[in-house]
Amino acid sequence: MKKVYKAHILYTKEQNRFEVLENGYLAVNVNGRVIAVATDLPSLNCADAEVVDFGDRLLIPAMNDLHVHAPQYRNQGIAMDLELLPWLQNYTFPEEMKYADTDYAERMYRRFVRDLWRFGTMRACVFATIHTESTRLLMRLFQEAGIGALVGKVAMNRNCPEGLSESVEAMVKGYESLIAEFNKPEALVRPIVTPRFIPSCTPEMLRACGELVAKYRLPVQSHLSENRDEIALVQSLEPESTCYGDAYNRYGLLGQTPTVMAHCVFTEGEELELLKRNKVMVAHCPTSNLNVSTGIAPIRKLLEEGLRVGLGSDVSGGHDLNIFRIMVYAIQMSKLHYQRNHERRFLTLSEAFWMATKSAGSFFGQVGSFEPGYEFDALVIDDRDLNHSDYSLLERLERYIYLGDDRQIAHRFCRGQEILEP
Amino acid sequence: MKKVYKAHILYTKEQNRFEVLENGYLAVNVNGRVIAVATDLPSLNCADAEVVDFGDRLLIPAMNDLHVHAPQYRNQGIAMDLELLPWLQNYTFPEEMKYADTDYAERMYRRFVRDLWRFGTMRACVFATIHTESTRLLMRLFQEAGIGALVGKVAMNRNCPEGLSESVEAMVKGYESLIAEFNKPEALVRPIVTPRFIPSCTPEMLRACGELVAKYRLPVQSHLSENRDEIALVQSLEPESTCYGDAYNRYGLLGQTPTVMAHCVFTEGEELELLKRNKVMVAHCPTSNLNVSTGIAPIRKLLEEGLRVGLGSDVSGGHDLNIFRIMVYAIQMSKLHYQRNHERRFLTLSEAFWMATKSAGSFFGQVGSFEPGYEFDALVIDDRDLNHSDYSLLERLERYIYLGDDRQIAHRFCRGQEILEP
Repeated sequence: MKKVYKAHILYTKEQNRFEVLENGYLAVNVNGRVIAVATDLPSLNCADAEVVDFGDRLLIPAMNDLHVHAPQYRNQGIAMDLELLPWLQNYTFPEEMKYADTDYAERMYRRFVRDLWRFGTMRACVFATIHTESTRLLMRLFQEAGIGALVGKVAMNRNCPEGLSESVEAMVKGYESLIAEFNKPEALVRPIVTPRFIPSCTPEMLRACGELVAKYRLPVQSHLSENRDEIALVQSLEPESTCYGDAYNRYGLLGQTPTVMAHCVFTEGEELELLKRNKVMVAHCPTSNLNVSTGIAPIRKLLEEGLRVGLGSDVSGGHDLNIFRIMVYAIQMSKLHYQRNHERRFLTLSEAFWMATKSAGSFFGQVGSFEPGYEFDALVIDDRDLNHSDYSLLERLERYIYLGDDRQIAHRFCRGQEILEP
Repeated sequence: MKKVYKAHILYTKEQNRFEVLENGYLAVNVNGRVIAVATDLPSLNCADAEVVDFGDRLLIPAMNDLHVHAPQYRNQGIAMDLELLPWLQNYTFPEEMKYADTDYAERMYRRFVRDLWRFGTMRACVFATIHTESTRLLMRLFQEAGIGALVGKVAMNRNCPEGLSESVEAMVKGYESLIAEFNKPEALVRPIVTPRFIPSCTPEMLRACGELVAKYRLPVQSHLSENRDEIALVQSLEPESTCYGDAYNRYGLLGQTPTVMAHCVFTEGEELELLKRNKVMVAHCPTSNLNVSTGIAPIRKLLEEGLRVGLGSDVSGGHDLNIFRIMVYAIQMSKLHYQRNHERRFLTLSEAFWMATKSAGSFFGQVGSFEPGYEFDALVIDDRDLNHSDYSLLERLERYIYLGDDRQIAHRFCRGQEILEP
């Protein structure tokens, strides 16, 4: 049955401004897609629809997380005074090895999915581990929860502990087993080919990843240009590549199918052109870039150049799953750029919101906006405890973004369905 | 009656390391001061004390906020895409003018004090407005709540709207009325002389502030070297001063009595020496420095030079009252320094914690540690919902700092008294 939701509706059709409908109406069809929004009920032409009145609450698109490591959930918020390499060696790799045990994986992954839900993230691009069965389990947990996810069994076979290395054959076999179960058209939860990053994958492994991508038309996720030492290492490992991005491109792993690359802190020149040409999505992870001290990604420049940019929590390099707080950090980091170069304006609230919703959402289909045809992924924000003065609707949203947390999220929707606590 | 609290006890006697007592005991005397901590009950020699068992919870010193503007509470989390000057003119000054109305002030200040309580801040250096009666009201609210505060009626008479300008005589008269009511030895809530900053105060106003300080031995708070334009303006307004800090010093407003200066982003050379010599406390406000895009304060350098440094929320330039999150930002900002100059190590967790507790606490007396003689200002952290794996006590504390919020604060103590929701 069609549904109409009444609330104060805010979303970003365009990067530079919010659409704001005070006491607006939003109609959703039986397939969970937005029919239209309007400021009065009759003009929706939905006399047959059930009307749900959310009163004085805010109705906004749900959050999308373009980069998060599910098996680093235990390490969220610890070891934050280490740098990238000792952090990987001493915390991240030992933790990921534990996911050979599906019981451990289930215990942790249940909490991880619950926490994504808590913070209103209804779609995510997720790194799992090399372990096929734990990855399958995570994908089933997402299915059960009704939350959209592209989940990657991680491909890696060099520069890592033995327990996290897998043969190329085993990697392909594992993927094909996951593909058989999950690679359905229109499925909410699907596999995504996930070479950890160039330093972790031999040329044979990268070639096999590229072949899986080509054969099954799977999307791709990985890390790109996070750190200067990493970039130098990639150049030595793939000496024929003209830039780090090109090292992926040569294996068919950079935009031949929809591709999201995390970080891109040092992306410029040829690499920037390559990402643009291949329509690669950049997952900007400002908390992670701060915590493992890699640098400030030039997001304003990437946007001006026309690149696609969304936001990622990058737990556990990032400490926070809450994408609203990632918006705040994205704005704050851009202010540091601005401080050095006043030619480049810092990010506005609407730009940060748009990156987290419509821009990031485009990686999952028609997701992240309330325009007609978009899947209805939404949050209902009950900000009574933050709304103690004569705030405008936009100020209420800004205050929720800066001050709120999961407590103010009253309802969550993915693809038209209300999603209850997993 | 003496009390003994049992819990996992963590605090920072020294900057570089945590004291950790698993299942420790802490004894408090009838005056609310710590007698001792120990890992067993008998060695405390407190057979006559009531023992309160907090079980598996963490017991840590309470938070101290060295810089916060109570009348900017309404504006917390809005207008964050403006720069300092339009933000002041369009949001901050118009809001502060409303505090001429004590009914408005009471409504807002009650929420403000409640929110400090929520986040475990038991001592604060607070800017009010020029309005004497609203300031008195705020001080009474702190008294009722049992939370320690140094509260400043703001002195200002130039470069501001008429409604926020007060004559020198009215300023002095207002202060003397507050001093008569509140300036008692050992009082939890006391006045602090608060020239807004040099650009807001004529030489006559600054001179009168200095006279109040000298006559009543009151502490001082203000802003220092937040922004390059501001520094240039001060130089033009006070051409005989050798640096911004010297402009305060010449009026007896820089360490002649205990003094806290917010920001010090650009403090170096002579100003740094002056702050050191005069034992001025620096209130580091990293969120504010990001939000109004002023820069990154060189905290590692200030600490190495032996300056006193604590943390401040600076609401509403800062968006967050939660000092635990300010610790996270302090570490993250120091990593950006580190990234540019690997000679200077970034701040560790113990350093950030020490700045928020023992270092900042020293501005209020013997506050911020659990050493014998310290006032028992403490928080009991119930981190069950964050503690789902085999974490060490330090990892539990780190996770609370990075991931927690007011929900995990089970009890709050100030000066030995449990402080309930105001």
